Amino acid sequence: MSQQELQKYPAASLRQFTERIFLLCGLPDDDAVRAADVLITADLWGIDTHGVARLKNYYEMLAGNFINPRPEIRIVRELPGTATVDGDNGLGLVVGPKAFELALEKAQAVGVGWVGVCNSSHFGIAGYYPHMALAHDIIGIAMTNTTPQVAPLWGAERMLGTNPIAIAFPGLEEPPVLIDMATSAAAYGKIENAIRKNETVPRGWLIDGEGRETTRPQDLGDGGAILPLGGDREHGGHKGYCLAAMIDLLCGVLPGANWGPFVPPFPYYLKSPGRSVGKGIGHFFGALRIDGFSDPVEFKQAVDAWRRVMRATKPAPGTQGPLVPGDPERLAHAVNLREGIPLLPSVVADLSELAARTGLAFTS
Amino acid sequence: MSQQELQKYPAASLRQFTERIFLLCGLPDDDAVRAADVLITADLWGIDTHGVARLKNYYEMLAGNFINPRPEIRIVRELPGTATVDGDNGLGLVVGPKAFELALEKAQAVGVGWVGVCNSSHFGIAGYYPHMALAHDIIGIAMTNTTPQVAPLWGAERMLGTNPIAIAFPGLEEPPVLIDMATSAAAYGKIENAIRKNETVPRGWLIDGEGRETTRPQDLGDGGAILPLGGDREHGGHKGYCLAAMIDLLCGVLPGANWGPFVPPFPYYLKSPGRSVGKGIGHFFGALRIDGFSDPVEFKQAVDAWRRVMRATKPAPGTQGPLVPGDPERLAHAVNLREGIPLLPSVVADLSELAARTGLAFTS
Repeated sequence: MSQQELQKYPAASLRQFTERIFLLCGLPDDDAVRAADVLITADLWGIDTHGVARLKNYYEMLAGNFINPRPEIRIVRELPGTATVDGDNGLGLVVGPKAFELALEKAQAVGVGWVGVCNSSHFGIAGYYPHMALAHDIIGIAMTNTTPQVAPLWGAERMLGTNPIAIAFPGLEEPPVLIDMATSAAAYGKIENAIRKNETVPRGWLIDGEGRETTRPQDLGDGGAILPLGGDREHGGHKGYCLAAMIDLLCGVLPGANWGPFVPPFPYYLKSPGRSVGKGIGHFFGALRIDGFSDPVEFKQAVDAWRRVMRATKPAPGTQGPLVPGDPERLAHAVNLREGIPLLPSVVADLSELAARTGLAFTS
Repeated sequence: MSQQELQKYPAASLRQFTERIFLLCGLPDDDAVRAADVLITADLWGIDTHGVARLKNYYEMLAGNFINPRPEIRIVRELPGTATVDGDNGLGLVVGPKAFELALEKAQAVGVGWVGVCNSSHFGIAGYYPHMALAHDIIGIAMTNTTPQVAPLWGAERMLGTNPIAIAFPGLEEPPVLIDMATSAAAYGKIENAIRKNETVPRGWLIDGEGRETTRPQDLGDGGAILPLGGDREHGGHKGYCLAAMIDLLCGVLPGANWGPFVPPFPYYLKSPGRSVGKGIGHFFGALRIDGFSDPVEFKQAVDAWRRVMRATKPAPGTQGPLVPGDPERLAHAVNLREGIPLLPSVVADLSELAARTGLAFTS
């Protein structure tokens, strides 16, 4: 089904519904607003897997007491430029922004701030965080570890998450450069879509439960795994594995969260790993004050120039030439804000069920 | 020709020869020792493209006054946790370690230090830097931009370097996890090798001068380009492009070095880009004090556990199971230290020529 055929819903209605759901779950006002903003931003940017499509899961985790709606987030260790934060088993959509704000504060104080987080849960789209930093003339960086779905190169089982990294650079006259990418060969959502459509997936995305290359997306559910970015050894799969490892060590091992195959699933009421090696899932945030390195205006002018040079690259055949990272999200944002957010029927069904259970409406 | 058939040379002899060459070029004693250490470490780790194979190029750049043998490296801007360093057109093998030491000092002071560098040149293997930090219980990070050889996804020309990133995590009883990777689909050295052997390269490595996929390595020299990690769009080439962009923006744009297609070539006396947008090439270094986030002993125990868990992954068919990043380099180091460093005949010829020109011997 193409985006055009989908029913569209005003972002403001979905935002209000999401805020009210979170309030009903016991979140404080500010936290409900923030958590809803993370989800609606994903939908506005066209990252529909990470928006209100997940609201029912968050609701179930809160309603089932798997997640603490009023966490006491505390700093367990810090230096002027660093901290580790314990998220008190709160919603990642709340813990993440608070921890990132701490990184911003530290950057204001000493030029740079890095904050590790344990005892958190899924924090939404990674790109939300560096986007928060742009207005402060700060380069923000966000990483998180996630439920194991990816095999290390030469492994035949899931040991690492799709572990995304995001970073953003402000422009002066031009839009920012915003990078937000998983470190696996393919996003889980793409594999889900292939299963729904009964299609095969490209070689280099998946292995089956025996570690053999497969194009059957169903094999992922039968003990298979997603390959790291690069795919096989010949195409740099060891590099994707290295990136996922780096993010797991920074987000999981360093702040004392679970890591590798022990990262709990999203949502929590699903099958859990047999062993716990830390608290919840982990994030790692960085904030670099631009004026700690360069004149901010000159830097932003240079980012503008960088964008124009990349956009002017000779196009490959059959393409319009390279995009600049963040442009697809920015274009989707403009369309979705104007026309409404297109929702898949299964998401509409989930939201309708939530509406029926709570007495709230998402189509105000 | 396999490694076994190559003539091997004691690391100590090559080190002494390299130090003396740098001294002859006018480097101060300490700088000559450091620069030689960066090169010999590459050879010991088995990264033979980045070791004494490049000594002749460095010599030519110094002898031809393209590089300043006695740079006055200065801090042009700083905050407690940040700095930008101007390398005064020095050898990257000297400027890099000094800038990284500044990052370490800043981390000692406030927990974390990030240092951008402009006006530098090729800094050797990226992994050298985080390896320097291990003994201090600091997680080191190194990135550099490099001569443009890589096309952005959907581009048909070289706009970005193979832009590597390296990071290392110390273990307690086990060896460190050391990641050092280019962000392109394949290393330039592999393409050179295919040309030498008159072989084709895998699909997903290269495009020709028209932006079409090619398996002819010669096409790289005829206006083609290396693809970013991931290769085409279907396999995540946009992610490799994002990584190369991130590193170019941090290393080039932020500290005021050249960036993108304007990064000067290595060696400098080769064709130069038509335009300069900054000074020299750029690096970006990070240093994170482990005790700013976690108890160092507990952290290192957890890194040991992480290693053991990854090594115990069920192996894919026909493999011994996943390696841990850094293990190939560590194993090569043990062998090469004991048996000597295997050098290609072309490298031996270069070193012999250098020996003849300088009156020094590399086979003491």
